[in-house]
Amino acid sequence: MYETTPPDDRRPLRIGMLGYAGMGKAHSNAYRTIPYIFWPGAFRPELTAITGRTEAKVREAAIRYGFQRYTTDWRTVVEDDEIDVFDNAGPDAMHVEPTLAAIDAGKHVACEKPLALSAADCERLYVAAERRGVKHLACFNYRFLPAVRLARELIDAGDLGEIREARFRYSQERGGDPEVSPWTAGTLNAIGCHVIDQARFLVGEIARVSAVITSPVSDRRAERGIETGVRMDTVAMAVEFDSGAPGLIDASSIATGRKNQLAWEINGSRGSVAWDLEDLNVLRVMRRGDRRLDGFAEVIVCEPWHPLAGVWWDTAHLLGWEHGHINMLAHFLDAVATGSPVAPYGATFHDGLRAAQVSEAAVESARTGRRIEVAAPAAVPAAVPVTQALSA
Amino acid sequence: MYETTPPDDRRPLRIGMLGYAGMGKAHSNAYRTIPYIFWPGAFRPELTAITGRTEAKVREAAIRYGFQRYTTDWRTVVEDDEIDVFDNAGPDAMHVEPTLAAIDAGKHVACEKPLALSAADCERLYVAAERRGVKHLACFNYRFLPAVRLARELIDAGDLGEIREARFRYSQERGGDPEVSPWTAGTLNAIGCHVIDQARFLVGEIARVSAVITSPVSDRRAERGIETGVRMDTVAMAVEFDSGAPGLIDASSIATGRKNQLAWEINGSRGSVAWDLEDLNVLRVMRRGDRRLDGFAEVIVCEPWHPLAGVWWDTAHLLGWEHGHINMLAHFLDAVATGSPVAPYGATFHDGLRAAQVSEAAVESARTGRRIEVAAPAAVPAAVPVTQALSA
Amino acid sequence: MYETTPPDDRRPLRIGMLGYAGMGKAHSNAYRTIPYIFWPGAFRPELTAITGRTEAKVREAAIRYGFQRYTTDWRTVVEDDEIDVFDNAGPDAMHVEPTLAAIDAGKHVACEKPLALSAADCERLYVAAERRGVKHLACFNYRFLPAVRLARELIDAGDLGEIREARFRYSQERGGDPEVSPWTAGTLNAIGCHVIDQARFLVGEIARVSAVITSPVSDRRAERGIETGVRMDTVAMAVEFDSGAPGLIDASSIATGRKNQLAWEINGSRGSVAWDLEDLNVLRVMRRGDRRLDGFAEVIVCEPWHPLAGVWWDTAHLLGWEHGHINMLAHFLDAVATGSPVAPYGATFHDGLRAAQVSEAAVESARTGRRIEVAAPAAVPAAVPVTQALSA
Amino acid sequence: MYETTPPDDRRPLRIGMLGYAGMGKAHSNAYRTIPYIFWPGAFRPELTAITGRTEAKVREAAIRYGFQRYTTDWRTVVEDDEIDVFDNAGPDAMHVEPTLAAIDAGKHVACEKPLALSAADCERLYVAAERRGVKHLACFNYRFLPAVRLARELIDAGDLGEIREARFRYSQERGGDPEVSPWTAGTLNAIGCHVIDQARFLVGEIARVSAVITSPVSDRRAERGIETGVRMDTVAMAVEFDSGAPGLIDASSIATGRKNQLAWEINGSRGSVAWDLEDLNVLRVMRRGDRRLDGFAEVIVCEPWHPLAGVWWDTAHLLGWEHGHINMLAHFLDAVATGSPVAPYGATFHDGLRAAQVSEAAVESARTGRRIEVAAPAAVPAAVPVTQALSA
Repeated sequence: MYETTPPDDRRPLRIGMLGYAGMGKAHSNAYRTIPYIFWPGAFRPELTAITGRTEAKVREAAIRYGFQRYTTDWRTVVEDDEIDVFDNAGPDAMHVEPTLAAIDAGKHVACEKPLALSAADCERLYVAAERRGVKHLACFNYRFLPAVRLARELIDAGDLGEIREARFRYSQERGGDPEVSPWTAGTLNAIGCHVIDQARFLVGEIARVSAVITSPVSDRRAERGIETGVRMDTVAMAVEFDSGAPGLIDASSIATGRKNQLAWEINGSRGSVAWDLEDLNVLRVMRRGDRRLDGFAEVIVCEPWHPLAGVWWDTAHLLGWEHGHINMLAHFLDAVATGSPVAPYGATFHDGLRAAQVSEAAVESARTGRRIEVAAPAAVPAAVPVTQALSA
Repeated sequence: MYETTPPDDRRPLRIGMLGYAGMGKAHSNAYRTIPYIFWPGAFRPELTAITGRTEAKVREAAIRYGFQRYTTDWRTVVEDDEIDVFDNAGPDAMHVEPTLAAIDAGKHVACEKPLALSAADCERLYVAAERRGVKHLACFNYRFLPAVRLARELIDAGDLGEIREARFRYSQERGGDPEVSPWTAGTLNAIGCHVIDQARFLVGEIARVSAVITSPVSDRRAERGIETGVRMDTVAMAVEFDSGAPGLIDASSIATGRKNQLAWEINGSRGSVAWDLEDLNVLRVMRRGDRRLDGFAEVIVCEPWHPLAGVWWDTAHLLGWEHGHINMLAHFLDAVATGSPVAPYGATFHDGLRAAQVSEAAVESARTGRRIEVAAPAAVPAAVPVTQALSA
Repeated sequence: MYETTPPDDRRPLRIGMLGYAGMGKAHSNAYRTIPYIFWPGAFRPELTAITGRTEAKVREAAIRYGFQRYTTDWRTVVEDDEIDVFDNAGPDAMHVEPTLAAIDAGKHVACEKPLALSAADCERLYVAAERRGVKHLACFNYRFLPAVRLARELIDAGDLGEIREARFRYSQERGGDPEVSPWTAGTLNAIGCHVIDQARFLVGEIARVSAVITSPVSDRRAERGIETGVRMDTVAMAVEFDSGAPGLIDASSIATGRKNQLAWEINGSRGSVAWDLEDLNVLRVMRRGDRRLDGFAEVIVCEPWHPLAGVWWDTAHLLGWEHGHINMLAHFLDAVATGSPVAPYGATFHDGLRAAQVSEAAVESARTGRRIEVAAPAAVPAAVPVTQALSA
Repeated sequence: MYETTPPDDRRPLRIGMLGYAGMGKAHSNAYRTIPYIFWPGAFRPELTAITGRTEAKVREAAIRYGFQRYTTDWRTVVEDDEIDVFDNAGPDAMHVEPTLAAIDAGKHVACEKPLALSAADCERLYVAAERRGVKHLACFNYRFLPAVRLARELIDAGDLGEIREARFRYSQERGGDPEVSPWTAGTLNAIGCHVIDQARFLVGEIARVSAVITSPVSDRRAERGIETGVRMDTVAMAVEFDSGAPGLIDASSIATGRKNQLAWEINGSRGSVAWDLEDLNVLRVMRRGDRRLDGFAEVIVCEPWHPLAGVWWDTAHLLGWEHGHINMLAHFLDAVATGSPVAPYGATFHDGLRAAQVSEAAVESARTGRRIEVAAPAAVPAAVPVTQALSA
């Protein structure tokens, strides 16, 4: 009486991934979840190949996540003709060279944040990807949480009026204990890029930065003769957006008691929104109306009619952190499959570059004590779209 | 340069599932996620067969979730020798007969809530499963959210002292609109069993119930000539636990503005805990100490050292609703694979029965206006463990 | 260059007060504050006389609060022709006899809660006051916090639609420690009357009660040979309002961690409100509208256009607990001075009686295990208004 | 049977006040409340004289608040030999000259914030008061809310470890509506001084400031031909404290939805505190301990054992905004009466000066785009204590 299940005949998008640690886990989870959550759909990701430094670990990851093959040589993946998408979920220092090689090979590319450790490297990646005409994604996953997207949609629709000021913070305590490993790339690179991207995503380009950067904890480590290579534990910026609106942006790894608080408040002329990653499903929304009942409403952004939430569960069945990654990679694969743009909801390498430029302006401001203009965006080269294996 | 990934040689637990709708989606997601999240482990679930009423839909679910075969005849699954675990994620009215048949066939059984629509049917299931010696799970998924488990562990350890009183509520608004579909089995069956199970899980057995049950909305539907079959929209109970502690328990489908608020507060002699499903990662904990700093602390229960959280993501990378199901089914499969008990952290059919007995006491109390003693638990029959295919 | 300030020629309302402890302090503060906060106004309270049991203490209170004269014999105050208003802020056991005597003497009367320790005594007070035609106030001060009043106004205006269900709690921890003095009159009398009054004020009359009453802590005191006279530490009720809506009401003195949490949530067909005395300036309001932005808004009820707030400070300059008493007594004196009714915003002795009747129904229900009908309201006697000294 | 109340024979401190508007109301309320709340005590304030510009209004205020005499000529008050304390609660522009004259006349002086509209004027006041040896108070009332004081005490005691970073904001929406009156002295003077004082009170001196100042709304007014004299609507600063800790401080009058949100978070190496004026009784406290239960606790700072709360009401009977003023002026009068210092809990003119110096550094930084060192504190002149009428 059984029927044998017929094959899933949706078009496969073959993923080649670099990295098997935390981000490798999150991305693998996304690729394994997308096929049945984004249903029905025109495509399905296929975990084709994985690469990483340590043989035993990459082999284990291949079994664990179901990649068909593995290698310790990332060039093998990058040059693999069967790979459609190269996903760089590796350590920060491994972002540039493999991603550039993948672009050269005509792969569509997703890369974890920070896109690179310097704006110059970010620009190389951005220019290369645009020239080659491949789709590119900078993995700013928090754009893809429903509450964050709803905020963006409210702002775009003018529901909050003109945006007049904004505050963004990313506070963690992980660097607070001298015994605990801090972010090796420093707070600004590790989490600062997220908070800068949120500011750009929601309010727009940042024109000028006045910053203070301190490292009270790493200094103390240094006193104890420990070399950490960590030079920045907190960064605090007063900024001006291109629109003229002022803003505050800060990132800290020494905020005792704050586990993972990426939080912001944006004030417009007709309303305001506030959000906190530690309560990620809720958008606090205030809009001018009946002044007797003026106040911030706690909106649980998990209903079928909310953006990015409809494919998931039932009413107010909350989503978690990982859903940002899943929604993001589904969006990227859709762009790859259909040719639709990654922007504006997805972050491209241009966004990765802009975040780095703001970071570097902050470092320069902190060093000189001057307000620094953020560098002009790179001129966009003429795109030469890759002939896509996908189009076959 | 590639190596071909070797097979995942962990022992398979072959799942046969009934149901392809909301719960089918949640359970399938769990079985697909467990292999790489609970890693390494001694087993892996295999989506062997799925059954459901409508051919086109069950076929689609089989493709979507990756079941190997499908059928519209549930007996085929129940009698399938290759099936280790029968998971009944089907509609309420389909819980009893197929599950009983699966028990008869020596399958380990998981069944969605409510276990059955009467205590008598729950008892049949419980007695059958115990007699047959199979593992049985009543799918009270909220026990498996980290914050709920932490509360239970604090209580078990005596960290709150003697439990003196408790309040439990489950408030939804879905029945509030006469145009919207209410819970067909009524609020008490649909969500009342969850809130009763939370009360039993955290405070213990309920001895006596005084209840008020109303149906303001369905009455109005009736006035408009609509037959809904829904006789209960709210149930409010004042209860006494076996311990002597008093409690309040209520469930409502007409709580305008409340999407999915399963919430409780438990007060002990040395401390208290409070929780809300709409903020599911947070346990509010108060413990007597320095009285200047007395207050409820917001504990984000998502750290590596928290129960049920360590297998997941990084610090305060929040979990969502679905993680309850995933953790629950991983726990059940572990019990199946290792022979360890499902209780006390997992709910068994005994817990399903007890929830139904409390519900029936509430209905009786509401009908008669009297305080009603909850029926005594069923005598536990001598278990005759099934010879397990698994033990090979 | 100075001018001498002319006298305040507003009509004096001469207050005679019984009690110098906590409530005496709160009421005295109110009478001293009203003259300049409720400005300009037609009257001003004058602290004419105070009485209390202990000579040294009543003398000290007279100096401290500025009463013109004092006595340990309450009859002296009650019979004092110059007194317009008798304010009974004394201990519970002293509510009935002096208040009755003041009514007999034609005084307008305010009396702290509980109005009396039995419904029968409450009824004596209510009937006497009505017969004599004096104004009477039961001091349910929480009605006079702006957020509570706003909720009442929203409900009255139909802004929440039909009220479908409601939950009320009053949780304190003071009885939780065996070494600490509990409420001598028991939880139900001490704070239960407040929570019952809030329920009646906001939702309406209570028809039927099913209650559980426990005293886990006092029992333990009893075991240790301590006689406390406290027989009730928690009361939990499932109720039905006259409207047919269900409700939960509970009061507890053993809720560890809860200092003074009088809190409620009321769900209507078109919206809901929630409030907590521990955050007393905020009303949480949800009203159906744009479903994308559905949620409870935190309304700080402290703006010039909010009820009861306009006489006070500037925008969101929060009010405290004592402002309920000040607003309440100002309202009562206005009724005395102008002849306007105390009800419906102010609680009268009728409300004091009704609260006691609900309490007694709860005690009876707890004793018998039966759902108990709340006694019918007393027939209102024909009022024979006192010839008011005030009218001169 | 009556006894006539004997006079209150505590030593009178005779107050001469300038100003009858909002601050005049708040200060008068304080002086009228102190005698019976701070009981028993060595002194009692006496409302001796009031002055203000408009005859009708100052006369009305004298009647309303109970001042014995009044005048439109502030010099009459300043030179009045009977006055012990000159309280300047007048408009910003009237702070300097009358206060200087009062100092010259040997009066103890309290002055509302901002102390003066320039640091130079603040310094004149500070130096004059110190030289003359009178007590001086800058009315930073928020220091005297119990939750703020508790934070200071925790920090002083080292309970939070070394302070590593801090964020302070003061957000209002009053300037957001072009039809509504903004702060005439600008946001920085009006509310910026409060938030700067909180930062200094809790974390210490500010060494350097990088600021952005914008006025989006007043610009728009200007476009419409309205001259407002308001040049600053928002100020955002990244600062460094003397300790080396970084901070963010901002003030805004255009934060739509924020009524009166003075809020901060301070992170130390062993714990953190957070507070919000819109929930003023609560201090959120996190201290490292059992890491399973790590989180911010909501401490309601209203218990008898809490600082500044014991004189007031019962457990968790919340205080309001005005209690800051009452507690502050009681503290100041106590310093006047006993000779105890106003600092460190009370703000002196030195604190008023320092706030102005930080403000001016912010303006200079915004103008030049450079990080600006805050001016060095004024050298403290040798005090020449006034021969106090009080000491008699």
